[in-house]
Amino acid sequence: MKAARYYAPGDIRIEDIPIPSLKDGQVKIRIAWNGICGSDIHAYLAGLPKFPTLTTPGPLSGETLPVTLGHEFSGIIVELGAGTDGRFAVGQNVCVEPIMACRREGSCWPCHEGFHNLCPLVNSIGIGGWGGGLSEIVSVDQNAVHILPEGISLEVGACLEPLAVAWHAVKRSGYKVGDTALILGAGPIGLFLLKVLRAIDPNSIIVVSEPAALRLEVASQHGATITANPLESDIPSIITKATNGKGIDHAFDAAGVQSGIDLSLRCVRPRGSVMLVALWEASPKIDLNLVLRREINVTGSICYDRVHGEVLEALKDGRISGIDSLITSRIALDDVVEQGIKALIQEKDKQVKILVHP
Amino acid sequence: MKAARYYAPGDIRIEDIPIPSLKDGQVKIRIAWNGICGSDIHAYLAGLPKFPTLTTPGPLSGETLPVTLGHEFSGIIVELGAGTDGRFAVGQNVCVEPIMACRREGSCWPCHEGFHNLCPLVNSIGIGGWGGGLSEIVSVDQNAVHILPEGISLEVGACLEPLAVAWHAVKRSGYKVGDTALILGAGPIGLFLLKVLRAIDPNSIIVVSEPAALRLEVASQHGATITANPLESDIPSIITKATNGKGIDHAFDAAGVQSGIDLSLRCVRPRGSVMLVALWEASPKIDLNLVLRREINVTGSICYDRVHGEVLEALKDGRISGIDSLITSRIALDDVVEQGIKALIQEKDKQVKILVHP
Repeated sequence: MKAARYYAPGDIRIEDIPIPSLKDGQVKIRIAWNGICGSDIHAYLAGLPKFPTLTTPGPLSGETLPVTLGHEFSGIIVELGAGTDGRFAVGQNVCVEPIMACRREGSCWPCHEGFHNLCPLVNSIGIGGWGGGLSEIVSVDQNAVHILPEGISLEVGACLEPLAVAWHAVKRSGYKVGDTALILGAGPIGLFLLKVLRAIDPNSIIVVSEPAALRLEVASQHGATITANPLESDIPSIITKATNGKGIDHAFDAAGVQSGIDLSLRCVRPRGSVMLVALWEASPKIDLNLVLRREINVTGSICYDRVHGEVLEALKDGRISGIDSLITSRIALDDVVEQGIKALIQEKDKQVKILVHP
Repeated sequence: MKAARYYAPGDIRIEDIPIPSLKDGQVKIRIAWNGICGSDIHAYLAGLPKFPTLTTPGPLSGETLPVTLGHEFSGIIVELGAGTDGRFAVGQNVCVEPIMACRREGSCWPCHEGFHNLCPLVNSIGIGGWGGGLSEIVSVDQNAVHILPEGISLEVGACLEPLAVAWHAVKRSGYKVGDTALILGAGPIGLFLLKVLRAIDPNSIIVVSEPAALRLEVASQHGATITANPLESDIPSIITKATNGKGIDHAFDAAGVQSGIDLSLRCVRPRGSVMLVALWEASPKIDLNLVLRREINVTGSICYDRVHGEVLEALKDGRISGIDSLITSRIALDDVVEQGIKALIQEKDKQVKILVHP
């Protein structure tokens, strides 16, 4: 079968590899769609710390490079391994929750508590090994598989992983009906954060700060109350006015840049929260006196923690809708680098989510 | 009467000024003891942002420099203004909660919510004006006055303000029985944090990191489980061992230095908390990827928020004891600069809390 295989920064190859075998308790899935994630771009540009190397196998997967990429995917069950649950059947539409943890409950405190996203060895299908969504077929443990309810397309199913990232971040923030929010950056994660916030409160004040014009327009179409370019507008003044001087309740950082975190700290109200969702290329300087004097809560959110079911419910009952319209391009596996990864780097003002069909 | 008056960095004068008048609703107090605080040292070395200037009056006090210093004080009621509560009587031992806020509940969100410590104009008796504890007499609003219960000395009463700072920080952290803690810095606030943590759990693991030998010894005497000099010992290894690999539940920063915050972030467990208590002279670089990947909560704590009653209860029933032994020196008002402020700067390894008797 065809697969997009990562060898090194700048070196992703479309290769022919064997179809993966099916172990007990696993489900074999024919991939329908795989979304390209920000981390795939990081991988292409610089590599990822969670990759194994050409010679040292990953501590959980036991695999070395090359690995198959892709961790945002949906597909159709084509075969069931021995011992799988009665709830699965060949032909079902499914999506996959790709995170892998050590699950040594005796010695790993996060795994003991069930916080698999916080396991020190945490990794993902499509990064550390185990195959990936940028191929034709994967075999995955049945516990990683979520059945897509009627009415949720395979395309939307491929967006479930980043939606779960946004859902987990919003859940951790404590955001509730009536709360105001500021989103820094309106890339896919920023926009999915907007969708999740709107699923909780369709009417509250949500301000989106983003330099790219298309993305601001998309944010506006998807329910942002105020959209502004931070290079042109004074976001703190806008927020002071919009919140009667109180400040914003929750800032969500989906940008990972110094100016964004500075802005967040200036805009949140006393005892408000700043939720870090984007990763950082360099450690920023933080005005901790501001954090202290306003008793601001700065925290982060990584992957997700048992929220896929909640996201599927919200998609099913319509609290989240219109995800299809955030998919700006559908491409073939052969074109993943040129029309996928490179398009996302070069055409920031044209692309939101790109899906790949093998 | 005599008072220590602040004019400029390095310029604190003992002067003779009029005894303050007594307004309706105020209580006149003869000062017994006033503790020297870290912010008095900052004031002497560099000034404080909350001081008025020689020409621009403070927005709340309407006073210009010079101001009388001292905000950690106890004393004896000598006169009651018209309209004061029946609970006050001449001769009572009291301490004062010195923070001042705008209390414009219609337009200031923190004041509306009762969070006076978070009012943008927050200030303090002994900093922004209103007299201060480094004098013979003050007149203060009755709502700022707490009666010292029998058995709590005037010396301990002068320590109530910094104890309330520590109490508020621990309360905000969510620390509970069985939780482990790391304290960075064993100056007065670090040691008071230790006392408050021990008031909640006499047996949990508390690690104190501090370079000064005397302070480590004092921390040990006051119940720290492990004390270590971070310049000599590998604190993360010590904590990994002490917590079976889990990491510490709560770090309290009472140091305000880059190496301390770096250490905190390395030592706390996933979803643990870092509570900032010390102010910062410069903004440190923060490894936000660590905050994000471990979902650490970084927040701060400023002054206190209606906790003086709880601290007095804890002193009364013995959950907090031995505060007297943290008082390392008792001096006269005339000696406040030479034997007080300068001693605290130069003799870090000899002094913890210095009290001034006017």
